[in-house]
Amino acid sequence: MKGLDKEIIKYICENNLERDLLKGNFGIEKENVRVDKNGRLSTTPHPKVFGDRLNNLYITTDFAESQVEMVTPVVDTLEETYEFLDNLQNIVSLELEEELLWPQSNPPILPDDEKIYIANFNDTSDGKEARRYRDTLAEKYGKKIQLISGIHYNFSLKDKFLDNLYKEFGKGLTFTDFKNKVYLKIAKNLLRYRWLLIYLTGASPIVHKTYDEKIINNMKNINEESYHIEDIVSFRNGSYGYKNEKDFIISYDNVESYVRDIEELISSGELDSAREFYSPVRLKAEENKDTLNSLLKDGIKYLELRFIDLNPFNKNGIDLETLYLVHLLVLFSLFQEDEPFDEESQKVAYKNHELVASFGRNKNLELYENFNTKNLLCNMGKNIFEEIRKLISVIGEKEEFLIKVVDDAIDKLENPNKTIANKIVEKVLEKSYMDFHIELAKEYLKESKENEFKLTGYEDLELSTQVLLKASIKRGIKFEILDRKDNFIALDNGKKVEYTKQATKTSLDPYSSVMIMENKLVTKHVLDKVGIRVPIGKDYFNSSSAKKDFTLFKDKSIVIKPKFTNFGVGITIFKDTFSKESYERAIDIAFEHDDSILIEEFLKGNEYRFLVLGDKVEGVLNRVPANVVGDGKSSIEELINRKNSSPLRGEGHRTPLEIITIGEIEKMFLNQQGKDINYVPLDGETVYLRENSNISTGGDSIDCTEDILKSYKDIAIKAAKTVGASICGVDMIIEDISQDATKDNYGIIELNFNPAVYMHCYPYKGVNRNIGEKILDLLDL
Amino acid sequence: MKGLDKEIIKYICENNLERDLLKGNFGIEKENVRVDKNGRLSTTPHPKVFGDRLNNLYITTDFAESQVEMVTPVVDTLEETYEFLDNLQNIVSLELEEELLWPQSNPPILPDDEKIYIANFNDTSDGKEARRYRDTLAEKYGKKIQLISGIHYNFSLKDKFLDNLYKEFGKGLTFTDFKNKVYLKIAKNLLRYRWLLIYLTGASPIVHKTYDEKIINNMKNINEESYHIEDIVSFRNGSYGYKNEKDFIISYDNVESYVRDIEELISSGELDSAREFYSPVRLKAEENKDTLNSLLKDGIKYLELRFIDLNPFNKNGIDLETLYLVHLLVLFSLFQEDEPFDEESQKVAYKNHELVASFGRNKNLELYENFNTKNLLCNMGKNIFEEIRKLISVIGEKEEFLIKVVDDAIDKLENPNKTIANKIVEKVLEKSYMDFHIELAKEYLKESKENEFKLTGYEDLELSTQVLLKASIKRGIKFEILDRKDNFIALDNGKKVEYTKQATKTSLDPYSSVMIMENKLVTKHVLDKVGIRVPIGKDYFNSSSAKKDFTLFKDKSIVIKPKFTNFGVGITIFKDTFSKESYERAIDIAFEHDDSILIEEFLKGNEYRFLVLGDKVEGVLNRVPANVVGDGKSSIEELINRKNSSPLRGEGHRTPLEIITIGEIEKMFLNQQGKDINYVPLDGETVYLRENSNISTGGDSIDCTEDILKSYKDIAIKAAKTVGASICGVDMIIEDISQDATKDNYGIIELNFNPAVYMHCYPYKGVNRNIGEKILDLLDL
Repeated sequence: MKGLDKEIIKYICENNLERDLLKGNFGIEKENVRVDKNGRLSTTPHPKVFGDRLNNLYITTDFAESQVEMVTPVVDTLEETYEFLDNLQNIVSLELEEELLWPQSNPPILPDDEKIYIANFNDTSDGKEARRYRDTLAEKYGKKIQLISGIHYNFSLKDKFLDNLYKEFGKGLTFTDFKNKVYLKIAKNLLRYRWLLIYLTGASPIVHKTYDEKIINNMKNINEESYHIEDIVSFRNGSYGYKNEKDFIISYDNVESYVRDIEELISSGELDSAREFYSPVRLKAEENKDTLNSLLKDGIKYLELRFIDLNPFNKNGIDLETLYLVHLLVLFSLFQEDEPFDEESQKVAYKNHELVASFGRNKNLELYENFNTKNLLCNMGKNIFEEIRKLISVIGEKEEFLIKVVDDAIDKLENPNKTIANKIVEKVLEKSYMDFHIELAKEYLKESKENEFKLTGYEDLELSTQVLLKASIKRGIKFEILDRKDNFIALDNGKKVEYTKQATKTSLDPYSSVMIMENKLVTKHVLDKVGIRVPIGKDYFNSSSAKKDFTLFKDKSIVIKPKFTNFGVGITIFKDTFSKESYERAIDIAFEHDDSILIEEFLKGNEYRFLVLGDKVEGVLNRVPANVVGDGKSSIEELINRKNSSPLRGEGHRTPLEIITIGEIEKMFLNQQGKDINYVPLDGETVYLRENSNISTGGDSIDCTEDILKSYKDIAIKAAKTVGASICGVDMIIEDISQDATKDNYGIIELNFNPAVYMHCYPYKGVNRNIGEKILDLLDL
Repeated sequence: MKGLDKEIIKYICENNLERDLLKGNFGIEKENVRVDKNGRLSTTPHPKVFGDRLNNLYITTDFAESQVEMVTPVVDTLEETYEFLDNLQNIVSLELEEELLWPQSNPPILPDDEKIYIANFNDTSDGKEARRYRDTLAEKYGKKIQLISGIHYNFSLKDKFLDNLYKEFGKGLTFTDFKNKVYLKIAKNLLRYRWLLIYLTGASPIVHKTYDEKIINNMKNINEESYHIEDIVSFRNGSYGYKNEKDFIISYDNVESYVRDIEELISSGELDSAREFYSPVRLKAEENKDTLNSLLKDGIKYLELRFIDLNPFNKNGIDLETLYLVHLLVLFSLFQEDEPFDEESQKVAYKNHELVASFGRNKNLELYENFNTKNLLCNMGKNIFEEIRKLISVIGEKEEFLIKVVDDAIDKLENPNKTIANKIVEKVLEKSYMDFHIELAKEYLKESKENEFKLTGYEDLELSTQVLLKASIKRGIKFEILDRKDNFIALDNGKKVEYTKQATKTSLDPYSSVMIMENKLVTKHVLDKVGIRVPIGKDYFNSSSAKKDFTLFKDKSIVIKPKFTNFGVGITIFKDTFSKESYERAIDIAFEHDDSILIEEFLKGNEYRFLVLGDKVEGVLNRVPANVVGDGKSSIEELINRKNSSPLRGEGHRTPLEIITIGEIEKMFLNQQGKDINYVPLDGETVYLRENSNISTGGDSIDCTEDILKSYKDIAIKAAKTVGASICGVDMIIEDISQDATKDNYGIIELNFNPAVYMHCYPYKGVNRNIGEKILDLLDL
């Protein structure tokens, strides 16, 4: 080891490039096989909800039908990568009915080969080729070995960063040649030092007895059902693991020689194609289908590290610390002084790789420094971390975190019993191979369920937008957040781009429809014209004229509301009699929210929110006004605080339900009931805090899509069609839902062009109506 | 005359129905023939801009191709009727190139019959029938008589008012029978007393020598070129005027007998169809094509008074006072005690009609009270007005105005020399028939021109909305104002309804396009992606982070603006160097208007507003920032006040240009130039008051549609297409308009989804680009 290249480090520091060292283009691919509740490999097909696996960017299948592959999009930071992986894990887990994701690289209980189904692809030439390739692999390597799963870590440097280096160090080279040189250097060093990561991340020490008999026979039986080798770290990375039949020696001098060597292996029949070259570190090209030509033409696009095992102790198979550990080794590889990676070096690397994978936990294990010199694994590792420590001080950022990552790694180097592999062995000895992993799988599923409505890294977006993003991820649609504050996203399925805001503002609705719905008076006018019942009412532009009409309304049930309002703000409802004072106060409140207000007839019955999407009512909710149920001891205020403490309640439409506030309207409403916030409701007594039932003002959502008669749904659809809307929230009052709609036993009080969709996905009571998917269907994405 | 029906009057007063007496459903039809500047009947076709005359609700042709008919829509008040008539008069006048509207019922200089062209209709069966009917009339009555023009006054009572009467007086009758009874009563009395209105409105005492020779020969030559009869009031209503060959006696007892009598006249061949029955008061049915059956089936829908002459002293052929005079006689007719209208009464009515029309100005003229009794016209008229005075006191509203209407009428009764007819005779004697009328026509055209941008009765709407309404009126499209404050209108061409707000918010744009344009950051992102140049920039959510970036921008030309802004509010531009203080102040100003702001690179060059409609750039404006030009004497403040006094400048987009304000931004901008509002610019010195050139902040609009090269127009169209917009205001900076667009000699700084269209219709300099019509084309209306 030559140590860090001082010239580069100096240039980095002088040009403030150290800020870019933790940035890059990162991506993770992770496989997990699906298993039943007992840990038997699933024989069911890949879930339909994930669409065409050949075109799904995030969720696909690897070798086997039961082998889910999750792919994070290219992002700038490892935090984002980790968060996306977490989302993929949650999304996939929650779509598996009665099945679990197996958290171990080594396979679960396997059936006979004929019941291991190779992944099915579509009927296109791409699909057929994908299947042919897998058939070849099954033939050549066997099916069971293909079920060994793991993590691929993809990385490239930012173009701007590379360009800065190029300006100083690229003299006489084209940019592509310079870029190739940089990536080849990183790749060579990663290959050279990969044993260190295998030691630290290796997590497949034990194999189930249903695995390949010939292999099992060479291993030691532990705990009845499973087998291992003493001191093994990673079965997957070891000699019986997923690798080529030979340790191929390839030139890493330049891209041309690299390509030439692989082409020779292919033409000699040793490899089926470039992608069968299972190098632990792969050079990746722009064009995946024609890698070698693309490498020659456009150069290396990114590197793929293929030797990381699934860490069963982490729900997502890897943790953020490990991602950074890999990145530190990448940087270390970049900033090392150049050394040749000749045949001897490659053979040494293969040797060390195998030694660590198979015997790494032996405290006295010595590795090769070169053909002639050996050294303790622990010492060799610590030498590398010495250099990495220097790098961390150059980086400057996240120092504490990175030092902890290094310290933990050194701790593992010094104490092999602290490695992941060792911990797994301990757990398996304590429980059993199957019990240990299945318990973890169940725990992870529970965790995913608890966070069902969350989309990690996108919590600042409105929940409805998160619902749509989640559906897009399931379907593998590329998305871009154009404006977080606006919840403005672009969805791109490769065929077209759709722009949406707040999930329901889309290209589907003409602006005129939005204008009509935005204006309650016009909405009523237009609906009335086609014979849909709407409450009678008047609009006012100043409070004095509204107040003058007291006599006009005094004997009616009325609602007083701002002309433009969202989420029920500023609305007051008088069901029976009301005083002139209350009437005037309500007018003032409404005018606080808009410069024109509406006073409307209040229709008798319950209010229902119909979500119309295209030609269908996709969900109906009865929204119950904010309320508390007494326990005979607590005051209304205490009950509210208790109800608000639920994790499902939050603020600003980022949780399924909203916090109940104690504002002027609530107090006025309690006052009308002769109560205040100190009143102690009886045990079981329900006290309503508002008349309006909007979820945004703390109401509860009760899904009743199945309970509503078709006649009402037809009216809702007609209303949406009348204003030309494709996405429309229809607020309908229904006197008696057990009776079919007549001319006057219902009334539409509002149409919403921007209906909250999350209410229909995460109702207070009821089932998820999967509105995100339905909006994507409507958008033809 | 029996006097008012006291029972009805009592009921009206007791039930507060008097408020409804001045309301009703009113409509006016008015004909004017087109003439050249010398008063010769036009031989040119009806202007194309008025579309298909068979489907144009407001502007069509009557008998002759040169005979324009203007039809006001049904409205509630006479004020609205009058205003709409005024608009029609202005609109039609301004579309006639080199032609005038002849303001007299009697024809202008007529050519020989073969050069009087009968109106051409479309090729549909309706069009063919319209032509056939006119051919028949030409054959039967001659062409020249058909050119006599006039006014039809259409009226019905409000259904609610009729319903109130029905409840009290309709016992034993169906509502339709009751309604028929009411209208028959009004019709009978109007027929009985029509002589009074003919006396007061008659305005066709003189005929040009080119009129029918046979008729002229029976008249007295005056003033060389024209002819009259001594004391004539209305040639049009007289025996040579536009009437049936016989005075038909028809039963008015009930609709059935009325229909039966007319059917008999048709089957005997005396009438071509029901519409050839030229009764001075017609019973009108729901269905115009099948009047008689429709009358039997649905009853009388409204009454049509057909005997009112064009008043040449009014631009619009009639004044508001006269409209009310007619209405007073209608109400008088309604509230008179019922009297039979038998053969004798009808003959008396015919006789009085003819006497007044032909000899009305004879102070000693006696009319028939019945076959046996005669009385002075003046006395008989005054008796009627005595009853009308009583009615006015019942009505309560507009008392002063109505009393003046009555007083004027009585004055005319007492002084025949004050009648319109007499005044016309005086003027013709003074000048000549042709000179007098042509001078008036020219004066009226001048008046219309002066008010080119105004739409009477709609001045509270934004000017762009008025532009669209005006275009709709030209094309005869029915419109409804759904929300005046919102400038929200519905346009209905009979085939479909389109909703528009502020003229440019329509169904043409998907909501997603609006969203993109609304968000400057997203707009830039999307345009940049397709290779359209946009200025670089950053957005900020708080002022401190924006202020921190001072060093980032300090050497650049920049613009600081609220993220969501309309009309340039809150925008500051720094072209060259600027101080940290000014920078921070500008940030504060921008944050006053939105909670996020943009700081952007300021592109060199002039700014142009491209109005893209569909696939075309329909207008390009260079907007010049608010400015004053010095006279060497006045201060900036005085110059601003002077410029603001132009009637073209106003506030809130209701005039072609806006008032220049002297606000903080103007003061800061002057300050940057080392000036303040007290500075006296040199003679001819232009002082700019703002950097931004929005019309809304007092800028001037210079049309330069023809000067802009296609390459820029193509870019504007591409930008609109990229965001999916059909209506889009593209703000482009162009370095040098004489050079074609390259990659970087232009830049789009903003797209507007709600571009002001009036700027392109009434630019400070340039021509009207008729954007209203183009939006209608785009809407396929």
